[in-house]
Amino acid sequence: MTRIAILGATGYTALELIRILLRHPDAEMVALTSRQEGNPPVAMIHPSLTDRLDLCLEDLGPTEVASRAECVFSCLPHGVTASLVPPLLDAGCRVVDFSADYRLDDPEVFAQWYGQKHADPDRLGHVVYGLPELFRDQIPDAPLVANPGCYPTSAILALAPLLRAGLIEPSGIIVDSKSGVSGAGRTPKMTTHYPECNESISAYNIGRHRHTPEIERILGMAAGDKVEVIFTPHLVPMDRGILTTTYSAPKGELTEERLLEVLRDFYADEPFVRVVDHLPGTKDSTGTNYCDVTARVVRDRIVTISCLDNLIKGASGAAVQNFNLMYGHPETTALD
Amino acid sequence: MTRIAILGATGYTALELIRILLRHPDAEMVALTSRQEGNPPVAMIHPSLTDRLDLCLEDLGPTEVASRAECVFSCLPHGVTASLVPPLLDAGCRVVDFSADYRLDDPEVFAQWYGQKHADPDRLGHVVYGLPELFRDQIPDAPLVANPGCYPTSAILALAPLLRAGLIEPSGIIVDSKSGVSGAGRTPKMTTHYPECNESISAYNIGRHRHTPEIERILGMAAGDKVEVIFTPHLVPMDRGILTTTYSAPKGELTEERLLEVLRDFYADEPFVRVVDHLPGTKDSTGTNYCDVTARVVRDRIVTISCLDNLIKGASGAAVQNFNLMYGHPETTALD
Amino acid sequence: MTRIAILGATGYTALELIRILLRHPDAEMVALTSRQEGNPPVAMIHPSLTDRLDLCLEDLGPTEVASRAECVFSCLPHGVTASLVPPLLDAGCRVVDFSADYRLDDPEVFAQWYGQKHADPDRLGHVVYGLPELFRDQIPDAPLVANPGCYPTSAILALAPLLRAGLIEPSGIIVDSKSGVSGAGRTPKMTTHYPECNESISAYNIGRHRHTPEIERILGMAAGDKVEVIFTPHLVPMDRGILTTTYSAPKGELTEERLLEVLRDFYADEPFVRVVDHLPGTKDSTGTNYCDVTARVVRDRIVTISCLDNLIKGASGAAVQNFNLMYGHPETTALD
Amino acid sequence: MTRIAILGATGYTALELIRILLRHPDAEMVALTSRQEGNPPVAMIHPSLTDRLDLCLEDLGPTEVASRAECVFSCLPHGVTASLVPPLLDAGCRVVDFSADYRLDDPEVFAQWYGQKHADPDRLGHVVYGLPELFRDQIPDAPLVANPGCYPTSAILALAPLLRAGLIEPSGIIVDSKSGVSGAGRTPKMTTHYPECNESISAYNIGRHRHTPEIERILGMAAGDKVEVIFTPHLVPMDRGILTTTYSAPKGELTEERLLEVLRDFYADEPFVRVVDHLPGTKDSTGTNYCDVTARVVRDRIVTISCLDNLIKGASGAAVQNFNLMYGHPETTALD
Repeated sequence: MTRIAILGATGYTALELIRILLRHPDAEMVALTSRQEGNPPVAMIHPSLTDRLDLCLEDLGPTEVASRAECVFSCLPHGVTASLVPPLLDAGCRVVDFSADYRLDDPEVFAQWYGQKHADPDRLGHVVYGLPELFRDQIPDAPLVANPGCYPTSAILALAPLLRAGLIEPSGIIVDSKSGVSGAGRTPKMTTHYPECNESISAYNIGRHRHTPEIERILGMAAGDKVEVIFTPHLVPMDRGILTTTYSAPKGELTEERLLEVLRDFYADEPFVRVVDHLPGTKDSTGTNYCDVTARVVRDRIVTISCLDNLIKGASGAAVQNFNLMYGHPETTALD
Repeated sequence: MTRIAILGATGYTALELIRILLRHPDAEMVALTSRQEGNPPVAMIHPSLTDRLDLCLEDLGPTEVASRAECVFSCLPHGVTASLVPPLLDAGCRVVDFSADYRLDDPEVFAQWYGQKHADPDRLGHVVYGLPELFRDQIPDAPLVANPGCYPTSAILALAPLLRAGLIEPSGIIVDSKSGVSGAGRTPKMTTHYPECNESISAYNIGRHRHTPEIERILGMAAGDKVEVIFTPHLVPMDRGILTTTYSAPKGELTEERLLEVLRDFYADEPFVRVVDHLPGTKDSTGTNYCDVTARVVRDRIVTISCLDNLIKGASGAAVQNFNLMYGHPETTALD
Repeated sequence: MTRIAILGATGYTALELIRILLRHPDAEMVALTSRQEGNPPVAMIHPSLTDRLDLCLEDLGPTEVASRAECVFSCLPHGVTASLVPPLLDAGCRVVDFSADYRLDDPEVFAQWYGQKHADPDRLGHVVYGLPELFRDQIPDAPLVANPGCYPTSAILALAPLLRAGLIEPSGIIVDSKSGVSGAGRTPKMTTHYPECNESISAYNIGRHRHTPEIERILGMAAGDKVEVIFTPHLVPMDRGILTTTYSAPKGELTEERLLEVLRDFYADEPFVRVVDHLPGTKDSTGTNYCDVTARVVRDRIVTISCLDNLIKGASGAAVQNFNLMYGHPETTALD
Repeated sequence: MTRIAILGATGYTALELIRILLRHPDAEMVALTSRQEGNPPVAMIHPSLTDRLDLCLEDLGPTEVASRAECVFSCLPHGVTASLVPPLLDAGCRVVDFSADYRLDDPEVFAQWYGQKHADPDRLGHVVYGLPELFRDQIPDAPLVANPGCYPTSAILALAPLLRAGLIEPSGIIVDSKSGVSGAGRTPKMTTHYPECNESISAYNIGRHRHTPEIERILGMAAGDKVEVIFTPHLVPMDRGILTTTYSAPKGELTEERLLEVLRDFYADEPFVRVVDHLPGTKDSTGTNYCDVTARVVRDRIVTISCLDNLIKGASGAAVQNFNLMYGHPETTALD
């Protein structure tokens, strides 16, 4: 039984993580942190947890967290995280970090996209990117795992096999993503106020979304070459789910059959990637840790479609998948 | 051409009012007030008005408003309004008030339900309740019209004819209402944050909603007797629309045919109330100034169903209906 | 390991049942029936099951089903079921029936509400109603369990403790229910066509819904008296969830504290009923087997609110709860 | 007053057309056709029209239609239309056709994409494409106007000015469109069944959607060159609205300022195209005849975003705009 702390337990990814861990036979939640006043029971903040988890939210520092827990899931925002991770690691905890702080390998790229200096720059480049489909071997022994972003997971799982096989051009890749609103977090804002975003779709942060360098870095590793993407996220009136449509240029002749075969071979032994012939909808994977992927050839362009639940395969499910690998549990525990 | 000012122009009822007035041949909007900093063009706040209305939001006092406008639509919250109405009236403006400040006739009832002393108590009891279906005669000459609440309109239009005809008992009336989220206003809150209220229905303020005394007062006038309602509002995941289901006890035998006949007779000449045989959905009246009403008899109880668009017949459409009556325009102008 | 067959496996309750059983350590699905042509893999019909369940849909008769399975979950419509249950029972199967065929105890009441003669009338009155909170003792040995309807479960769990305690009047009880669209089944119809029911709420079958006699029968057993309800179901634009608001008259003085205390005592040992102080939304129980219940007193009327997921506690979760009781598994297996 | 017939009056575009024409001072609807049995009042099919339009649906042939109406709006499906248009034109009617039958200029391209021989092939190439922003001069005298498709309108309004100005490459243009569900029509299907498409986004008909050759033809006219697009439509859980994101390669250096300037110049006098700086959501134009357009430059690619209401600017609003031009009414009549 691994003792677990969750930092920043008021958000949606934390809630989803708690739901998954409640089904995990070898995980025991022992601390939930938040700056909420008055140490409320977690069910006061997340009523769906009533009678299911008897813990209070506490405003704990790294030392206190480390005194209780072996494994820490940090659901804190970027910037904050990188100042907490070093003391947690020093105190012997292992950490799965949901923020973007350790997903890039270059502090300058971080500073450019996140508008702040990195608090723990020397560690960048030495942290495993927690996408088991690409980096499974490095996860079991990792003290710190950078849990991937939701958009990057959807784009990378569709494109990495094609880039690694040298089938598509690494530049000019278009990533047109559509996400449910939970991806915007749990703090009320005008853009996520129901009467504003319901019955409406809109694009945001075109060319400026912070997941861009993350997608480019990991796809670049798959391609063995510099990758450039044009990334356009859209907000869709639904709770969860991401559908990512990518467009890229093939290197030479390429049939749909070949594309699907390459994808199927790549993911043959993967428990959570399903290469499908039909065009998947996000609902097929909602509530699960699956990512559905397919591909088409249209007028000499490669089109891929990938779908996942942004809170599960795009966040908390992936985190538990990493946890399972880190602690030697079957990878699918609590996720099927 | 009547010169119009709209106070509190950033909210949803104001936006809907502007949309309607843009189609009104005899209304000219000359001032939009708000405490927004920097006098932004209204289209900055309401992008749907881009290229449609060339006015800026201004932080204007009553004197300035009165110097520009003849008719003032006040979309300000309760409490604020009652301190602005007296100077506006004194300066010669006529006012249609969207707040609850002048809908009750007893300052003590106001204080009890709204938790504050009324700022203009002497006027209470002398202000017409702007529901043309019940008080049309008093509207043309009114300097001030209290525009009805959205829930009250839906409940009153269904029940007033039955109470006036003495067909149902005035006590123990159950009013179970279901409203779209725009009724909660345009300020982001946790309860109206998309991932919280989407795909969920919930009741709120059971027995404590401030529309209760308003419903009881107007139904009491129709009944000529004290009316007591049990009012339960629910929040429904949709932008607009209210469906109100009421349950009451008949006085003596009562058939469905008789019920519908009484309703049809009562509304025979009304342009905006449709008595229907089928069970209406809110979508039938969304975007219109109609209220659809029907009735059933079940196990010796009277059940009524009424539907309207909370932002139109429940707010801004009713306000323009009142405006038309006040200024001698055909009542349906800009509303059909 | 119990061998399980699911009859009528193409619908939403069957899909939800499969999802739950996939997590059950002691259940093995061995047959899925349907009249679909060509024995398609179940994932062709339910793409979310891709790579999760390797079974095909088959058009099997009772003998074939009984030769493979010990326990049969029948998700077939009413009327059809009552002709299949006898041969299944005769062949030694135990059956959990999702239809209404065995929920009533009087063939004439069945005929009156369902418009057809019952095919197995002698069994009525001898079948346990599978609501463990009321009839747990009778379930372990039952060869046939009538799985409760979704609306009835929400109404009964709120009202039965109050009626049993003699706190409320058994007549004139108003049950105003609001349901998500999955309750209407998986066959496309105009009323469930997205642009018709999205952004709209409507009432349907007022006073004529077939769950009425089921609610009255079970509440009557709790009250030890004849119970009459006025039942009004509404269709709400969301996938899942039922919120039921009931209104009843207290017998004598009754406080909110007393009401909640009675409910809490009644459900003290129940794993899936949560008596809460706050007003629950359906989202709190979506995706779970919980039913949330609370109560209020308004102007001498009792108001209860209860929420559940119509496909889980209102159907497939309850069925697995019954299965667990029937086969001696811990009652919460696969449900937490 | 122009006498108007609407063919195929049961669908969503017809309903929207009726709503608009009810506000038109110079249009009188005199016939609504449908194959519905029994000539029901139109309000039986479209309850929102109760008390608003006193016409029955009739199964009328072209001769009867022509005997009553001067102008015919045909909302019939492709294939059917081309056999009805010739007799209507011969009988002296003018026709606005909502189907795709007269949008292409080559019967072979039609046969290839629509899978059937064209019934009136000689007329192709001689019918004006009813997009006033590009072909206004040809509309006033046209006996027959091919009303544009919803997706094409959104793509063409964003790209035509850039192609005409020679700013972007005409090949390899990616058109990634997202549409509300009303675009799929009013016939219930599994893909538009509420619990299937709600809370889900999916792509469909990738590279095979029939609007592809229409987009290519009209953009080709703007470019003066062959245009090839990769077109991917997506179904979004909302009633109405299309957002189209396009990606293209600039010819030479191109700044965002220049892009927006070219668009603004092109649409300077257009009443219904708004070139905006911000990223529009579909809700900004829902319920209106506006199309909102903007553009960005990302990593040397041109990204455009355009939004419109698929039932209005994408169908019935455009049709009335054409009608206004055909009959000499101010172009914005009934549309503002």
